[in-house]
Amino acid sequence: MVNPFFKNNGPYKLNEILNELNLKSDEINKDLDIIDIKDLRNSKLNEITFFHSKKYKIAANNTKASFCITSENLKNELPKNCIPIIVDNVLISTAVITTKFYPDSINDDFDTTVDDINKTEFKNKVKFGKNVLIGKNLSIGSNCKIGHNTIIEKNVSIGDNCTIGSNTIVRNCLIKNNVKILDNCVIGKHGFGFFPNQNKNFRYPHIGIVLIEDNCEIGCGSTIDRGSMSNTTIGKNTYLDNQIHIAHNVKIGENSIIAGQVGIAGSSVIGNNVKIGGQAGISGHLKIGNNVDIAGGSGVIKDIPDNSKVMGYPAKNIRDFLKDNR
Amino acid sequence: MVNPFFKNNGPYKLNEILNELNLKSDEINKDLDIIDIKDLRNSKLNEITFFHSKKYKIAANNTKASFCITSENLKNELPKNCIPIIVDNVLISTAVITTKFYPDSINDDFDTTVDDINKTEFKNKVKFGKNVLIGKNLSIGSNCKIGHNTIIEKNVSIGDNCTIGSNTIVRNCLIKNNVKILDNCVIGKHGFGFFPNQNKNFRYPHIGIVLIEDNCEIGCGSTIDRGSMSNTTIGKNTYLDNQIHIAHNVKIGENSIIAGQVGIAGSSVIGNNVKIGGQAGISGHLKIGNNVDIAGGSGVIKDIPDNSKVMGYPAKNIRDFLKDNR
Amino acid sequence: MVNPFFKNNGPYKLNEILNELNLKSDEINKDLDIIDIKDLRNSKLNEITFFHSKKYKIAANNTKASFCITSENLKNELPKNCIPIIVDNVLISTAVITTKFYPDSINDDFDTTVDDINKTEFKNKVKFGKNVLIGKNLSIGSNCKIGHNTIIEKNVSIGDNCTIGSNTIVRNCLIKNNVKILDNCVIGKHGFGFFPNQNKNFRYPHIGIVLIEDNCEIGCGSTIDRGSMSNTTIGKNTYLDNQIHIAHNVKIGENSIIAGQVGIAGSSVIGNNVKIGGQAGISGHLKIGNNVDIAGGSGVIKDIPDNSKVMGYPAKNIRDFLKDNR
Repeated sequence: MVNPFFKNNGPYKLNEILNELNLKSDEINKDLDIIDIKDLRNSKLNEITFFHSKKYKIAANNTKASFCITSENLKNELPKNCIPIIVDNVLISTAVITTKFYPDSINDDFDTTVDDINKTEFKNKVKFGKNVLIGKNLSIGSNCKIGHNTIIEKNVSIGDNCTIGSNTIVRNCLIKNNVKILDNCVIGKHGFGFFPNQNKNFRYPHIGIVLIEDNCEIGCGSTIDRGSMSNTTIGKNTYLDNQIHIAHNVKIGENSIIAGQVGIAGSSVIGNNVKIGGQAGISGHLKIGNNVDIAGGSGVIKDIPDNSKVMGYPAKNIRDFLKDNR
Repeated sequence: MVNPFFKNNGPYKLNEILNELNLKSDEINKDLDIIDIKDLRNSKLNEITFFHSKKYKIAANNTKASFCITSENLKNELPKNCIPIIVDNVLISTAVITTKFYPDSINDDFDTTVDDINKTEFKNKVKFGKNVLIGKNLSIGSNCKIGHNTIIEKNVSIGDNCTIGSNTIVRNCLIKNNVKILDNCVIGKHGFGFFPNQNKNFRYPHIGIVLIEDNCEIGCGSTIDRGSMSNTTIGKNTYLDNQIHIAHNVKIGENSIIAGQVGIAGSSVIGNNVKIGGQAGISGHLKIGNNVDIAGGSGVIKDIPDNSKVMGYPAKNIRDFLKDNR
Repeated sequence: MVNPFFKNNGPYKLNEILNELNLKSDEINKDLDIIDIKDLRNSKLNEITFFHSKKYKIAANNTKASFCITSENLKNELPKNCIPIIVDNVLISTAVITTKFYPDSINDDFDTTVDDINKTEFKNKVKFGKNVLIGKNLSIGSNCKIGHNTIIEKNVSIGDNCTIGSNTIVRNCLIKNNVKILDNCVIGKHGFGFFPNQNKNFRYPHIGIVLIEDNCEIGCGSTIDRGSMSNTTIGKNTYLDNQIHIAHNVKIGENSIIAGQVGIAGSSVIGNNVKIGGQAGISGHLKIGNNVDIAGGSGVIKDIPDNSKVMGYPAKNIRDFLKDNR
């Protein structure tokens, strides 16, 4: 379930996709319908995926996709079922094709379709403050509260017994039950993802959502960006303190505790029962295991195995850090 | 003065309190009225307190409380006037009893009792922006200003000549005179205090307030959490820059200067005339002396004596740090 | 172009200025009109400037100002065209005189002159959300969007094709074309600049603006303070992620990329094509060259030459850092 909200404008003929990338189409399959674009792990028959770094070799070896945007030197990692489409810049080409399937995902301007909650079906169902705005394609469960000046934009599903604070903005977000999101948060905006380009950067689409599981709490002033090709997820009963930034595609496990002003960069995966002290930072594309303790102020720049306690910048075993810094 | 705002639902008979903790009540005093629950230093005759760590031994030795929730191995530190109540988990039991006295302090949902300021007594007294919301049990002095979209929730007292910016939320807060709170702040929310518990954490009550003394300034986007069993306080003429996080129970002295993005973890005490550079972090339960300079970016993990200059992570004498890092 | 927005209440006779500083006026020029106050580089004939630190010796040697507030030990650095005005505390005297020229620049209370956008000339020109407030002395180009609850206070110029998010506050700001400012930002507030003073600090005026060039993007929850005597500037096509703090007088070049939770302290100058990783901090009054990479979490406390890659706290050559921290 990558994408419950953004409308897929496909399918597109393979030929149309190749044209979009300015590639010649001597493919015999050129009239084949391509249904969707997904990452290596989630794509299936008659879908297209992308493969841009050896880091994802295992996922590439096992992809179920029928086509894959990739480069000359990576193409041999793909299985027989998956036909490589060779391009100069895999990520830019992927952005182009994703935008073709999901044109709405590139634009994060404010939602012009919102209405005052008093004019919506939620008027009698939700307990709400003053000046609450509600977008389209929205569901809200029973016994929920929404604070003053809060904007629930389009493409949001909220479960039962949830509380959203005041001055908060939510969009493109699936929120399960008993979740609390406090004041002044922005949840579900696109991530900081673009291709640097002199004079005018080129933004890539974000078709993922933010998924917040049961019993979570998100502190004041926090920002959680939605995913680009996969989702940003916060696991069950994980608590975030104030002023935390969770970048796109980050996945945090269950029962974790993250203190104030922590930042987690894009695509990192955090395990269950992880504790992260205040102001710690975690670089992108890392894997932090289960039951890990990261001391406040640490800067984590490599993977951390299960059951470790780390501290420092760069973060290392906490005993070593304290010994080295007596 | 711990608690001007939350209503004390007590007194309770000692017997009721023991029942709440599932303890047998062979106490001869079981019909005694217990008036209140406070920390070791502030509690008095016929009140109950709690003692959970040797760190607070001196306060325990001198408590005036009649009863104390504590553990088998700490009970002998209590004076004769104070009868120990032995429990398995001191903090959870304290949370249970505090919630019994102050049930309102556990819930930080948005204040449903607020009104447009135009419908309140403050209409002609305060200079205010558009869409200002005002809660119950509120006082505001002369010559104050409140910016657009700002929400002053219940349980707030504001002195004379104060300015609150726009998009700011204040609750459970005692603000003295000539204080400026800038835009997009959240002041007085409960702290990040709870007992971790698989599947569903258990929040403890926050019966403290935020106390901001004369002439302070609080920068944009800052969050100051109210105290759990004591107050969070900002001393006279202390200035905070933007995006600062002050956790629950922190006490900052007078004439201190705290630069942008600093974070101070729970229950730390900062002296007078302290300067803290941008992005520095201070761990919880520390004591920072008077006239201390903490360089920007430092991570302070132990107490700092008066008149020190520190830098680094972990923060140490600034000369040593600079020498080690030439 | 230092100051398109704040009204200059001058000119003042030299005599009036000397009186304001409690100086004797045996000057023969005492009836001369002083037109304006500016920094050493920008001031011209019949204007007054200030010089308080040897760091600015070269600028002082070449100033075109007719008068300069300075100290006994610096006065000999000034050229013949510039008559020194000797005071005890250069910065406080400068603040006093600046406030005399620009009394509006000292007060950052919320703008009481704003109107609902529906009552303004922008009603049919701009695409806007609910509850948008618009100040005086404002221009907005074609094809702009302004999100819900956003406040564009007085003294703002916005170019074409710009998008401002929701819950954002902008004042004293010159925004060029194709700029995106996301949600919950505060842009153009005065900086954290004041003279520490027991019991009551003394704020100095901020007569600068925030200048944001073409094609920039500013992430959610960011704060950019306006300059004191010069402007805060963000160069063309520079992208800022969420929760970033840019202090007063900072100048950032073109095509730079600044990741989440970065903080840049006052008056630092950042080059073109600079990449700054998440949570990095840059001290005040530094010069960071072009094409510099600063790793996430770094603390930069000295100038960085062009084409360098740095990491650590204090930041140093990234190879050295990684070697030292294996």
